[in-house]
Amino acid sequence: MAAKPSIPKGTRDFSPVEMAKRNYIFNTIREVYHLYGFQQIETPSMEMLSTLMGKYGEEGDKLLFKIQNSGDYFSGLTDEELLSRNAVKLASKFCEKGLRYDLTVPFARYVVMHRDEITFPFKRYQIQPVWRADRPQKGRYREFYQCDADVVGSDSLLNEVELMQIVDTVFTRFGIRVCIKINNRKILSGIAEIIGESDKIVDITVAIDKLDKIGLDNVNAELKEKGISDEAIAKLQPIILLNGSNEEKLATLKEVLAASETGLKGVEESEFILSTLKSLGLKNEIELDLTLARGLNYYTGAIFEVKALDVQIGSITGGGRYDNLTGVFGLSGVSGVGISFGADRIFDVLNQLDLYPKEAVNGTQLLFINFGEKEAAFSMNVLAEVRAAGIRAEIFPDASKMKKQMGYANSKAIPFVALVGENEMNEGKVTLKNMETGEQKMVTPQELVSELK
Amino acid sequence: MAAKPSIPKGTRDFSPVEMAKRNYIFNTIREVYHLYGFQQIETPSMEMLSTLMGKYGEEGDKLLFKIQNSGDYFSGLTDEELLSRNAVKLASKFCEKGLRYDLTVPFARYVVMHRDEITFPFKRYQIQPVWRADRPQKGRYREFYQCDADVVGSDSLLNEVELMQIVDTVFTRFGIRVCIKINNRKILSGIAEIIGESDKIVDITVAIDKLDKIGLDNVNAELKEKGISDEAIAKLQPIILLNGSNEEKLATLKEVLAASETGLKGVEESEFILSTLKSLGLKNEIELDLTLARGLNYYTGAIFEVKALDVQIGSITGGGRYDNLTGVFGLSGVSGVGISFGADRIFDVLNQLDLYPKEAVNGTQLLFINFGEKEAAFSMNVLAEVRAAGIRAEIFPDASKMKKQMGYANSKAIPFVALVGENEMNEGKVTLKNMETGEQKMVTPQELVSELK
Repeated sequence: MAAKPSIPKGTRDFSPVEMAKRNYIFNTIREVYHLYGFQQIETPSMEMLSTLMGKYGEEGDKLLFKIQNSGDYFSGLTDEELLSRNAVKLASKFCEKGLRYDLTVPFARYVVMHRDEITFPFKRYQIQPVWRADRPQKGRYREFYQCDADVVGSDSLLNEVELMQIVDTVFTRFGIRVCIKINNRKILSGIAEIIGESDKIVDITVAIDKLDKIGLDNVNAELKEKGISDEAIAKLQPIILLNGSNEEKLATLKEVLAASETGLKGVEESEFILSTLKSLGLKNEIELDLTLARGLNYYTGAIFEVKALDVQIGSITGGGRYDNLTGVFGLSGVSGVGISFGADRIFDVLNQLDLYPKEAVNGTQLLFINFGEKEAAFSMNVLAEVRAAGIRAEIFPDASKMKKQMGYANSKAIPFVALVGENEMNEGKVTLKNMETGEQKMVTPQELVSELK
Repeated sequence: MAAKPSIPKGTRDFSPVEMAKRNYIFNTIREVYHLYGFQQIETPSMEMLSTLMGKYGEEGDKLLFKIQNSGDYFSGLTDEELLSRNAVKLASKFCEKGLRYDLTVPFARYVVMHRDEITFPFKRYQIQPVWRADRPQKGRYREFYQCDADVVGSDSLLNEVELMQIVDTVFTRFGIRVCIKINNRKILSGIAEIIGESDKIVDITVAIDKLDKIGLDNVNAELKEKGISDEAIAKLQPIILLNGSNEEKLATLKEVLAASETGLKGVEESEFILSTLKSLGLKNEIELDLTLARGLNYYTGAIFEVKALDVQIGSITGGGRYDNLTGVFGLSGVSGVGISFGADRIFDVLNQLDLYPKEAVNGTQLLFINFGEKEAAFSMNVLAEVRAAGIRAEIFPDASKMKKQMGYANSKAIPFVALVGENEMNEGKVTLKNMETGEQKMVTPQELVSELK
């Protein structure tokens, strides 16, 4: 029975130090969400497959973890069906539940099921793991947390403004310098509209994105190669060369998109969001970036993405406005806007830049060395006082060798150690040792508390 | 596609109010764990079935949620195997992973896999959901959280003492009056030993438990019925009638168990734990209770259980000392002691006794009513100040009818509302309305902050 245990590939154990860091990340995000009036919900890890299937494309369906039905999952299956060995088709017979793939579909399902209890606009956040049977690779896991916030049931652009304030506040608190990039689906649609190539949005944004690297001539050549007409390419020139401040870019776009109602609406929305944010004063830069083209089959208005300035890594937060969150479950007219912080990447960035505050990662503040039964009994009384004052403290439970006990303090990075011997007990005091400086002094329990507070 | 969505039976959505209450419970437990030097870990939701199977008995194996292998899970299966329709046997072919059933087995697996990184004694806590394909019924769910703390790698009874202090502190913070019941497996073994009926421990504890209800004669009759000899029943009399303070009970047991080394060891351990706790001064009562017989095939020393005094409900916390946590994974000699708080039952108790502190459940403290674009722009600036001061505040994103906006404040139980019109903007102030008293006054942003702090 002594099998060497392992964990499923793509999953992780989190050690105490990793957990402290992860909690620091989640708590920081959570606190800021609360400051803006967002409320937490949780949904079950399992959803009915009928809720999940068909929501993430054919590829997504394959990446769902399916849970085998309890009991006799063969019932009702003919020999022919079984022997067909059709893994996809039979999965739907063997399994009726699956693990959640993201937080958006369960949220949509939640809104529909609880619509009568919810007061709209509904500002909800959700921090829970999701599961995907993706091929595991560096930085990609089969179980990972998402931290989403959405406002549904309000079309006001103040929601976009506040989400950008949240992003700015969270990364300021982390000490991560970022550039917030913003775009608008309607501007992209407007561009496609005026050049008459509505199916080429992605080709256009990809080509524009290469301007710095390959130069204007090559960008134009690439557009031509993608089948875009000379006339359209000519019209695109001011957009490819779009430059300057956000205000300057918007002014140019207003001219170029003059013939597109949708495009102008996108410019207007971006203008409102950017000018309101300017008057509120963000700590981080926000930049209108037309090459930002995430979630084009999903987002209908503003699109955002956050890039870390001091670390080479993909986007660490993203989001946007969408229509009709819940239509697929029979409730139409619920639009919203949301963001999602990439906790795993933020974890990596904070590690690389060594930005975790000491107090966030440190656990126990004080360890009592155990010299024997009498000394331990004395220590336990002092411990009770110290803990009542809110200080995280422990006693080494066994009267082991000093070296082992000090090694324990070191490996847990405990900054102070208390020593209690005959002398200390007689005087009703403890000797407090600062593990960093090596300094020692005898103090009363009250002094101990104020030293550590 | 407009299917009416549902969630798997035995699972739950948690609304914002429920989440606030649950977070209050988890945070309280977590804070006390930290005060005692416990560190958090997390393990994956999925474990290899080889890790889980055979650890919870045959019944437990059936209650595991199994995850279907990705890709072609039929590969390597003969027609005969398939047509056998042996659900249990084929599950092990179709599935190699399962959802965790408790936190103990994953913890044991964690200790074995990470033994070289861990400094012992290892004081870990873990707060995560577990899944069981049990028949759902009132108060029993297929997905629920466990909140476990264990110390492994130390035989010191100070660990038992500290776990009881943790229990005492947690329930004191909750305001739930409890009785902590403690027993010791070695005392029960000693009793069985001296009466020569080692397989009858459970029958004996069950019968003793009925003393108050059915009286001594009936208890003795029941013991006889269970096949216990007259001589053994005679020896059991002082134990059945055990009474008085913990000290008195222990004195009696010392006499009765004089001939059992194991029994005396159990008495000695209980004496140490109870006398140390007495000198430390618990807020709640702790009682030696021989009828406490949980986890007899698992616990080897102290056994504890916590009962709420003011609500009729089963045990709300339990635990004990065990040997050989990790033997099944090839690492012997790791003993430990642990407790587990029953979060769902504590949730019910706090609800029934209405003990949630207001500040734990309340979210947003201040709502700005939205009277239009200009007013909203002014409000957003005040909001930024208020939030920078740490006050949870929001603005109704749309300039909807007053009634709708006030209804939103009411349904979210927001205690203060800020009104901004022409007057307020001219004076650089806001009108602050206390939603409970109806009182209104004009205040500067600075005054607003100090009112709400």
